[in-house]
Amino acid sequence: MSAELIDGKAVAAEIDQRAGQAGAELSKALGRAPCLAVVLIGDDPASDVYVRSKVKRTEAAGMTSIEIRRPADVSQAEVVEIVRGLNSDSGVDGILVQMPLPGHIDSNAVISAIDPDKDVDGLTEVSAGRLLLGKPGLRPCTPAGCVLLAERAMGSLSGKSVVVIGRSILVGKPAALLFLEQNATVTIAHSRTHDLAALTRTADIVVAAVGRPQMVRGDWIKPGACVLDVGINRVDAPERGEGRTRLVGDVAFDEAVAHAGWITPVPGGIGPMTIAMLLRNTVLAAAARAGLDRPAGL
Amino acid sequence: MSAELIDGKAVAAEIDQRAGQAGAELSKALGRAPCLAVVLIGDDPASDVYVRSKVKRTEAAGMTSIEIRRPADVSQAEVVEIVRGLNSDSGVDGILVQMPLPGHIDSNAVISAIDPDKDVDGLTEVSAGRLLLGKPGLRPCTPAGCVLLAERAMGSLSGKSVVVIGRSILVGKPAALLFLEQNATVTIAHSRTHDLAALTRTADIVVAAVGRPQMVRGDWIKPGACVLDVGINRVDAPERGEGRTRLVGDVAFDEAVAHAGWITPVPGGIGPMTIAMLLRNTVLAAAARAGLDRPAGL
Repeated sequence: MSAELIDGKAVAAEIDQRAGQAGAELSKALGRAPCLAVVLIGDDPASDVYVRSKVKRTEAAGMTSIEIRRPADVSQAEVVEIVRGLNSDSGVDGILVQMPLPGHIDSNAVISAIDPDKDVDGLTEVSAGRLLLGKPGLRPCTPAGCVLLAERAMGSLSGKSVVVIGRSILVGKPAALLFLEQNATVTIAHSRTHDLAALTRTADIVVAAVGRPQMVRGDWIKPGACVLDVGINRVDAPERGEGRTRLVGDVAFDEAVAHAGWITPVPGGIGPMTIAMLLRNTVLAAAARAGLDRPAGL
Repeated sequence: MSAELIDGKAVAAEIDQRAGQAGAELSKALGRAPCLAVVLIGDDPASDVYVRSKVKRTEAAGMTSIEIRRPADVSQAEVVEIVRGLNSDSGVDGILVQMPLPGHIDSNAVISAIDPDKDVDGLTEVSAGRLLLGKPGLRPCTPAGCVLLAERAMGSLSGKSVVVIGRSILVGKPAALLFLEQNATVTIAHSRTHDLAALTRTADIVVAAVGRPQMVRGDWIKPGACVLDVGINRVDAPERGEGRTRLVGDVAFDEAVAHAGWITPVPGGIGPMTIAMLLRNTVLAAAARAGLDRPAGL
């Protein structure tokens, strides 16, 4: 038995397109396209690549992108001021501050300055509270992408057992709440969990989000389960030549593929979904801010 | 084998006393005692009893209590105005609006008016977000009481498996996050969960919070487990005479007591802890608002 590969890239492209269509529809009511503002501080190469990708996909979806860059030595007060300016700009629907910020800036202070109704990353206290309380609001992108891929693979998630490995605020905890919202039975496991292998073997859906390369082994997977691998770890790959590296997930893919019913590859699984859900959140924010219904197809 | 009864009333009395001591200590720095304001709208008898009990225990702990009552036909705007007045009153540390509110008042609008730093019920979006994000903040009283009782019974909860039955925003979901904060492995189960009995039998700690009388049966309990029964259900008790009723929990106590290692009775288990944790939150809020360290012993 070999698992069906979940093609996150293809699903992400479809979500991008749907967000674009909904955004175009929304433009008629708004008199302008939905707009995402991205703030990048400093010149971290990985952040630069990621921001470029966000800008490119936003524009490819027919939406407006604003990019604000400042050097690494900018003051925290100035970054907060930038965020406040974007809050009060009625033409901006989504605000994303690219993390990590330079060490002298308190990320919490910057994040908490973001208007929750424009918080397309779902990182503010208010957004997190809305998620926990089951109220309408913007949900974090990566865990929302996990739920969407699981639904695509399995249909209704009601009654499915989910084991989320990892309890980060970016993935593990919000993923648990989002699967719960779909009526799944959810367990949150972590480094202190006893016999994680046996627990994981009970799961219909496994979300691996710990940041430890290939920690989840093949025999941890119940036959036919859906495996969502959020990890992106760079490891040495001497087989590719001296000094070469490659990306692997938190799941030992070559082993797990023989047990799982569905599995996300790394790269090309969950990764591409994050930006797709960001575009979706931008359109959802634009609609909600204008007091319009949730756009069809999103 | 018969479980050890967890005496919530005795633990609550101890917490009341500790809160009182910490409050007295704090009074020296503040120049006044910590102060809890309770808002009661209408004349629901159960709410009245509950508010009286809160006021009495606050005052018995040496703290200041403010009680604000309005008739059931008060406007939502006036209730929000009352809350705003309490927000801006620097002598008030905690604000509690007794639920339920009359039908014409939107509870969400009232709750969201409460300053999160005075939100001793832990019900605002910001308080919920702080809980989810693991940031300092005021935690909901009943689930915090569950964690405290479990720790008293079992010691460290690290690595313990917890099954929370019920996913309400008042108990189930915050309880899951609070046990997770103590490094337990937490599963959230509910009406859509498959084979709830078998799942519950895997738990070191069971939190029953569904509001269905005696739903959790004795053979659902792993021998030696800690059973926390949050349910308070009034049922007919013909054995006590015609038309008589009695209170039972969500756990079939007489059965479960033969399997569990520890169990909370109903009444007298979790119930009394809620007000104790409210007094504790009032002191914690007073200290945090004054920029002081968390008081010792709380």
